[in-house]
This record gives sequence, structure tokens and C-alpha cells, in this order.
Amino acid sequence: MKIVVLGAGRLAWHLVPALNAAGHEIEAIFNRSLSNALPIAEKVGAKTLNQLADLPQDADLYILAVQDSTIELIAQQLPALLKGRRVVHTSGATPARVLARHCSDYGVFYPLQSFSKEKELDFRKIPLCIDAKYSETKEVLRELARSISDLVYEINDDQRAELHVAAVFVNNFVNHFYGIGQDWLQQHQIPFEILHPLIQNTAEKILSARASDLQTGPAIRRDWETIKRHESQLEQIPEYLELYKMLTQSIIQTTEK
Amino acid sequence: MKIVVLGAGRLAWHLVPALNAAGHEIEAIFNRSLSNALPIAEKVGAKTLNQLADLPQDADLYILAVQDSTIELIAQQLPALLKGRRVVHTSGATPARVLARHCSDYGVFYPLQSFSKEKELDFRKIPLCIDAKYSETKEVLRELARSISDLVYEINDDQRAELHVAAVFVNNFVNHFYGIGQDWLQQHQIPFEILHPLIQNTAEKILSARASDLQTGPAIRRDWETIKRHESQLEQIPEYLELYKMLTQSIIQTTEK
Repeated sequence: MKIVVLGAGRLAWHLVPALNAAGHEIEAIFNRSLSNALPIAEKVGAKTLNQLADLPQDADLYILAVQDSTIELIAQQLPALLKGRRVVHTSGATPARVLARHCSDYGVFYPLQSFSKEKELDFRKIPLCIDAKYSETKEVLRELARSISDLVYEINDDQRAELHVAAVFVNNFVNHFYGIGQDWLQQHQIPFEILHPLIQNTAEKILSARASDLQTGPAIRRDWETIKRHESQLEQIPEYLELYKMLTQSIIQTTEK
Repeated sequence: MKIVVLGAGRLAWHLVPALNAAGHEIEAIFNRSLSNALPIAEKVGAKTLNQLADLPQDADLYILAVQDSTIELIAQQLPALLKGRRVVHTSGATPARVLARHCSDYGVFYPLQSFSKEKELDFRKIPLCIDAKYSETKEVLRELARSISDLVYEINDDQRAELHVAAVFVNNFVNHFYGIGQDWLQQHQIPFEILHPLIQNTAEKILSARASDLQTGPAIRRDWETIKRHESQLEQIPEYLELYKMLTQSIIQTTEK
């Protein structure tokens, strides 16, 4: 396929080479700032451009790999001719219908992963959630997704919205708790690496069991003595103490249901 | 070494075979209920007993692998002669000083991992935190720890208490969020496996970076539109909504420090 990618952020950084390696032609990369687009474009021999009016009109697919908040703005500003072409966004949090107002043949191509430029990712292990207005486009997106990943799911707007909420809990919020662990140990001059095996093991076990069957710790044991001791330790950081109390309460509630 | 283990729970289930495989003799396993002790004892050819008065008196080490709440009770009820022998507990949440009241040569042998009977664990990758009143005993525990694990740390009572708080955040609380993810997706008929790669990736990245550098999601982006949408989705489960609001607030605060 001949593809134009709009956006040059972390997703484009990983997606563009993966598409190229699967034999697709990345015709051009659009970005307001060309200096961000250039290093990605160079990897795959693509043109770069920073004016929407200059977008090639013959691509098979236009991928909006831009921030959620600018998806609709870009779709709106697409040259009239392109509004009839296949346009997809890549956002988990954004309904496809924001494209519907501006494009006729639209869809979603959402890789469910948290991307950072530093870490190499094997795209074949990244779930791709696809959806489209037309079933023909859905088929095209499915083929494209399969060419770069083994994990392809058809997920509609409603499901994707719920999926995104769950992703916030198991990724963003989990990472925040990792951060509290790092901060707490640093404050007490204890190396965080002591917790590495525990973190890995917790993340592995959830792949094959229910969290409720795996739950350990003072809350699930109703070990009030330990809970009280933890709370008094946490008094130095009221924010952590509040989180501790709330999570302890929530774990207890779960088992009372 | 000749070792007596008191307790036949999940920790003993993993620790006893690991000690045995490293060439130590498990002389006896004590447990109030013999039916729990037997399957562990059979693996290593140990005696079982359910009366503290029957404990062998010639072991080099007595390991209290019992619930936190019963450590002191057992220590108190040890036969007088044993109170002068080397006695350690295995708890991350309990100060060594609860043993000090009853034993003269005491210490801690704390494996920092969450054990379940189902999952096989490589003990060499489990951090062992040791401490003891006497430096000679500390040396003995260090040798013992090294015989079964590559990750041995000397951690005193205060550090271990702080470590345990951090472990609650990165393990117990993280597992609870995994559970919310599972529950939420089940309610919306979406397979949880879609989130597996994200969970694995999040847990891997934290091994080599600061959480604050890895944080993604609507909170860190101040993406209020997405946050509002998530909150309205979560209204069906007020408990989840409250957690969402609190974590979002906490992530925002972290970047304002």
C-alpha cells in the first residue's frame, strides 16, 4: 500500500518503520515541524512536508498519527479532494465519528501500546484495534494490520472507549504506583532493583489468572496491625497516605461483593 | 545446614524444596495441621510435627515461616532450650524485635516475593533480605541466602518496613488495578488479553527508567476532554470513578512538584 502519515510523534516513530518493513510505501510524512519528521522520513525514504495543501493525493491510506486533541482540526483542514479518500486516526480515546464530520471513508487504526522513542518494540506483539465505516475499508485495514502485527482486533467506538479506560488503570495508574515505589525507596536509600522481581512476577501472573485469586498483602488479609503501621509510616507524605487508604478500602470492598 | 521450618504455607511450599536442593537438611516441619505439612515434608524427606515441645533441639537454624500475626506467639511458646538457638522470621512487615523478647540469637530471612502454590518460581531470582542481631548469625544467613539466591541484601528493620510499604504499592495495589481492568473489560465483553502486551511493556520499562519519564495518558497530558469522558463512563461504578479521580489528581500533582 501507498501510505501518507500525518504526525511525527512517538507512534509515527515506531509505526512508520514497521509499515515500511512490511513492504508498504510511505509516500510522505506531514508534520508542522519538519525537524521532527525528517529523522523518521529518512529511515524509510519518504518525503516530508509541513503544509496540508501539499499532501500527495494518490495514497491508498492517510494515517492521522497526531495528538488526540488535533485529530479533528487536521481532518477539517484536509484539502477537499482528500476528504473522500481513506482516512484513519490512531487514537484509543477518540471516537471515529470526529472524522465522520469531515471525511467520507474513515476508520481507526489503534495500536494499543504505550510508545517511547527509547525502547525498541516488536510491532508483531502490539495489538492493533481496527474499525471503519465501510466493510471494504475494514478489510483493507485488517490486511494492513496483519502485515505488521499478529494481534488484530475489530473494536468499535464504544468498545474502544471502554478499552481505553481499562488501559489507563493497568498502564498509566500502574506506572504511577511504580513511581511512588521508586520515590519512597529513594527517600529511604534503598535500591529500587530489590523490587524488580516482584514487579515482573506480578505482571506475569495476571496473564493467566484473575487478579482476585492473586491478591495478597495486608488489605486482603485484614491485617490491621500492618495497615496501621504502614499508615503511620506514610504520614510524612499525605498524598501517598490517602492513596494507601483508598486502595486498601477498595481491595477490602472487592472481597465483600 | 540442618534446618527446622515452622509453618507450612505458601512460602514454606517454595522455600523448603529450594533449601533442600541447595544441599541443606530440612530436619523437620512444624505445623498445627499436619495435613498441610505432609506434602511439603514428603518432597524433602523431613519429619512433621504439630507440637512445639517435640521440635528437634539440634538444628542450626529455626525458620518461622508463619503468618505475621502468629510470629510472636510461636516465638513465645518455643521450648526454653530453643530460645537460645538461631531463630529467624520471614516477614517483611514485622520488625525483628518481636523475636528479641523471646529469643537471644534472632534474625530475619525475608524473601521479597509474592508466593502462590500454583506458580513455579526460580528462587535464584528472588531477593532475600537478611538481618540478625549478631554479626556471626548475619554471616550464616548471608551464606544460606547465597546458596539459594543470587540476590541477597542486608536490610535492617527500618529499611524493611519502608521496603514493605513500597512493595504494597508496586504489587498489591498494582494487582488490584489489573483486577479493575479485568472486571471492566469483562463487563463490556472485551477480551483482557488485548491488554497483556501493554501490561508486560509497562512492567519492563520501569526496570531501566524513572516512572516520571515513562508516564503517559490523559492526566500527564492535561487532556481534560478525555478525562471528562472517562469519568462519565466510570459513573456506573462509583468506586472506580473515585479511584480514577484520585489517581489523575495524584499524577498531575507529581508533575507540579
